[in-house]
Amino acid sequence: MAKYMSMEHLRYVLFDVMEGEQLFKFERFQDHDKDSMNIFFDSIKDFSDQELYPCFREMDEQPAHYDNGKIVVHPALEKILPQTGELGLVAAPFDYEDGGLQMPLTFHTAAMFIAEAANNNVPGYPGLTGGAANLIATFGSKVLKEQYVPNMLTQEWGGTMCLTEPQAGSSLSDITTTATPSENGSYKIKGQKIFISGGDHEYSSNIIHLVLARIDGAPAGTKGISLFVVPKKRINGDTLENNDVLTAGDFQKMGQRGYCTTHLVFGENDDCQGWLLGEANFGLKYMFQMMNGARIAVGRSGVAISTAAYYASLQYANERPQGRRLTNTGQKDLSQGQTLIINHPDVRRMLFLQKAVAEGSLALMLQTALYHDLHMVSEGAEKEKYYFLEELLTPILKTYPAEMGQTSVSNGLQILGGYGFCSEFVLQQYHRDIRIMSLYEGTTGIQSLDLLGRKVTMKGGKAMMLIGQEMGATINEANTYDELKPYAKKLSEQMHLTTKVVGFLTGFAQKGEFERFLSDATLFMDFFGTIVLGWQWLKLATAAKKALVTGDKTQTEEFFESQIHTMKFFFKYEIPKTAGLAQSMMDTEVLTLKEEKELIL
Amino acid sequence: MAKYMSMEHLRYVLFDVMEGEQLFKFERFQDHDKDSMNIFFDSIKDFSDQELYPCFREMDEQPAHYDNGKIVVHPALEKILPQTGELGLVAAPFDYEDGGLQMPLTFHTAAMFIAEAANNNVPGYPGLTGGAANLIATFGSKVLKEQYVPNMLTQEWGGTMCLTEPQAGSSLSDITTTATPSENGSYKIKGQKIFISGGDHEYSSNIIHLVLARIDGAPAGTKGISLFVVPKKRINGDTLENNDVLTAGDFQKMGQRGYCTTHLVFGENDDCQGWLLGEANFGLKYMFQMMNGARIAVGRSGVAISTAAYYASLQYANERPQGRRLTNTGQKDLSQGQTLIINHPDVRRMLFLQKAVAEGSLALMLQTALYHDLHMVSEGAEKEKYYFLEELLTPILKTYPAEMGQTSVSNGLQILGGYGFCSEFVLQQYHRDIRIMSLYEGTTGIQSLDLLGRKVTMKGGKAMMLIGQEMGATINEANTYDELKPYAKKLSEQMHLTTKVVGFLTGFAQKGEFERFLSDATLFMDFFGTIVLGWQWLKLATAAKKALVTGDKTQTEEFFESQIHTMKFFFKYEIPKTAGLAQSMMDTEVLTLKEEKELIL
Repeated sequence: MAKYMSMEHLRYVLFDVMEGEQLFKFERFQDHDKDSMNIFFDSIKDFSDQELYPCFREMDEQPAHYDNGKIVVHPALEKILPQTGELGLVAAPFDYEDGGLQMPLTFHTAAMFIAEAANNNVPGYPGLTGGAANLIATFGSKVLKEQYVPNMLTQEWGGTMCLTEPQAGSSLSDITTTATPSENGSYKIKGQKIFISGGDHEYSSNIIHLVLARIDGAPAGTKGISLFVVPKKRINGDTLENNDVLTAGDFQKMGQRGYCTTHLVFGENDDCQGWLLGEANFGLKYMFQMMNGARIAVGRSGVAISTAAYYASLQYANERPQGRRLTNTGQKDLSQGQTLIINHPDVRRMLFLQKAVAEGSLALMLQTALYHDLHMVSEGAEKEKYYFLEELLTPILKTYPAEMGQTSVSNGLQILGGYGFCSEFVLQQYHRDIRIMSLYEGTTGIQSLDLLGRKVTMKGGKAMMLIGQEMGATINEANTYDELKPYAKKLSEQMHLTTKVVGFLTGFAQKGEFERFLSDATLFMDFFGTIVLGWQWLKLATAAKKALVTGDKTQTEEFFESQIHTMKFFFKYEIPKTAGLAQSMMDTEVLTLKEEKELIL
Repeated sequence: MAKYMSMEHLRYVLFDVMEGEQLFKFERFQDHDKDSMNIFFDSIKDFSDQELYPCFREMDEQPAHYDNGKIVVHPALEKILPQTGELGLVAAPFDYEDGGLQMPLTFHTAAMFIAEAANNNVPGYPGLTGGAANLIATFGSKVLKEQYVPNMLTQEWGGTMCLTEPQAGSSLSDITTTATPSENGSYKIKGQKIFISGGDHEYSSNIIHLVLARIDGAPAGTKGISLFVVPKKRINGDTLENNDVLTAGDFQKMGQRGYCTTHLVFGENDDCQGWLLGEANFGLKYMFQMMNGARIAVGRSGVAISTAAYYASLQYANERPQGRRLTNTGQKDLSQGQTLIINHPDVRRMLFLQKAVAEGSLALMLQTALYHDLHMVSEGAEKEKYYFLEELLTPILKTYPAEMGQTSVSNGLQILGGYGFCSEFVLQQYHRDIRIMSLYEGTTGIQSLDLLGRKVTMKGGKAMMLIGQEMGATINEANTYDELKPYAKKLSEQMHLTTKVVGFLTGFAQKGEFERFLSDATLFMDFFGTIVLGWQWLKLATAAKKALVTGDKTQTEEFFESQIHTMKFFFKYEIPKTAGLAQSMMDTEVLTLKEEKELIL
């Protein structure tokens, strides 16, 4: 069994760095403790070792595909999917009254991360089922909840989110699926949805689609969109009957080929019934209340894949002899045997880069989930504070592990040389798989508009002020250790630079030049994402330094020193990027707004 | 027929920017002129349109593969391979006396680029045949030349380069294939070679392998390596007989799946004969004299794939409506129909980035090939000058289009949103294909060691001084136009920064700290490659400005304005990266050299 993630590092970040145990003092989470969480993680790790990792390569080689009206997925899912239910991967974060375990999202996310590092084709199935069930549990009537939620939490029934339509893409104001009221209180649904992950397969006895549609006569744009529960098979007493949801085809993809992506047609025979969730015309609002969860999940996937790729390339670097180290004459000593490639500086650089991206992103993931949980259980000003912090970090978590994760995985592939490009090694699979993460649930461009256009500016910059305070706290703690002071200073300088860039850009918004304001939003994402990761690394290193100084060591000395070293690596090799990005963003030349004459030829 | 490259832009760079016609005044090239070259290009474009592009997707979907001792390639190659010979794609750069056309490499490279943009699975076959034939023509005896070269130039016989062995990888000093002298003046060859591109297939009646091996008793390391001509079938009078070259398998790859990659076993039955090329123990030297050509060819592939991907995403952006532009209220006007996505700033940014990378790399490719040709035909100090310039630019051309090409293609894929990840669109294929370019013919790490460790320092920095003069000439010409002055100034600043960085790094070499000197060579490659592209863009823009000012226009006004605009884009969005890279390289902290304690965990 190859190593695909580190339980030690996960526990370190969760308990030592984020102090995740703080959550157990809140009433909602009081039945959990560190021991019970560790037992939960161990059960997920065993399941991942025994069931998920062994079929990871095969799911890619034998991809999910459409065959005669049906989607055929890998047969291992027959056993795996119910186990995801039994282990609590769907139910964990739900309320007790809905059949859940009231587990903090922080810990649920950590558990899903383990499974996803083992096999990123699988967690999407229980993940989307949980997301859909959460919508029903939160906004649905008592009847809808009773009808659907219990079977979904066991993963006996699957769930999906149906947003995208062929003609609209990310522009949800343009969706055209219709909902016509019918006599029995339900609606007749008619329309097509594409890119529906987990949309059909034979190992769930029913699949519950959460569908965005327009009720006849609804206002144009996003204000006229409602959300419907549309089962593949509708409940008729004790039986399930066909609900006119047709699987018209699938999308064959470059990566994540074990996770089916479908094209669904609702109501081709005018016999597709849907049930309104919550109030009419509030559909998009409901959907977006769940969107943070979906975006945190995509971020998690990026973290998981870059982590697994890191360990795969590290193993290779530790086993493969090639070449010799340069001596101080500038020559190589041919009388020596070949050295392991991990001893070459450029290979070490690529390994540290991967480690810096993967472990830093893991910290960001747990930090964001922690803010989510604290927001959920806090009150008053605290609640608001954590709300802003979660809102600000979510698009970054969605994006950084996806974008820098690609760079990271590509460096892993590079370490294997020509073998990295060959199908017999796993790196090329990770390389293909991770590419989807910057597209799922709003592309990087859309996340960047969200970050700069909404989150940075909301409530007069409140979120930015709060994150500044959080970073300030980390800087103060780091400053208690001489070794860390130079990096605390660098982070502080980056915060000043951020203030300058934000001031420059928001100046355009104040002048009403909104297109100009947002035209380099993607650069701002890259810029601020790098700084946020720098903050997380300073936090990781400070906790490590503290352990080394106090001697209160949960891990080996090398483990802690490695954290500090990797932090230094991040500040030497990644943080300086922000200089160029700031320069580009504050350049007054305007080159990407549409002009009279088209110059892209 | 989708557009995959621009004949207008190619001609503009070749004739207007590089003034390629200057080559025709040299005796070697005197039989060619602009018209004959354009006719040649048109014939290659027709062939590419009619034969290469139509089977590009299919070659990926039905990859070359090993089957029962044989390699099966796409059947379209049966017709295509002889045509590459007939059209002169192998023979063009060879001497008349060897059956060639004495065409400058600059123009041959341009022609291969056209074919490669249409289908990057194909040009490797004639490309390697030409490379192998060139080795025989240059270093072989009269007999060897007569036996092999003519059939190779028609591509009736294929050719390969056999360097890599399983246990040695890039470390050629560790190869173990043996050559034992036999009675008839030939050698018995025994050993295994992997990653042999074009190593076997049914559409060449013979394949001529150029094999690195050690003659029994040869010195250790690279000084004991000789080069052998080892045909798949040896010549026996008028017949060909089996030469004990076994195809043991192939490598299935993530991309470029139509181009076979094989594992060959020589002499398993002690009956494989090879003929020594040139002198014993000079094999690596010969091979490396041809290596510049191979590296220019890989650079060309990167240029070709990023060009084709650019046009594919541009077409999509021009056809796909989605969303609306932001108005000056910060809102979108829903009463308007959707806009084409090319009108969104972030999409425009991604398109300009692709254009900047693809067209700038094309210029670098032709610039490097031009220096090669000028080196070949010049004399005295001029000859030396062009030698240094070619040596310096070659690792950059090998690397920049490969590395930034990946970023460029990935941005193209991103423009298509979720569709970009789907097999039904071509972008994902380009994304997979281009990934090999930073591995072929020496990885990016190896090219970077070559650039910083050899080329920058050779003859006391002569090559750097010469490139400085070339850049200076471009800056002077740009300075005659007010619009271009700010960019000329920026390039000049970048040259100063380069001097500073090189001074800092070579300081370590002077102290004998060679590992430290070269530990960030890959960053230096990224840094200096970006500056070299900035130079090429200033050159492209200066020629465009000149055409606009003089009215001597070979292209439309929009074409020239687009060149100037894209140059500005490059200076705003790419050049600033060098600031961070310089900062990282001149940081005094040492973090990637092997230490006592291993901290990569």
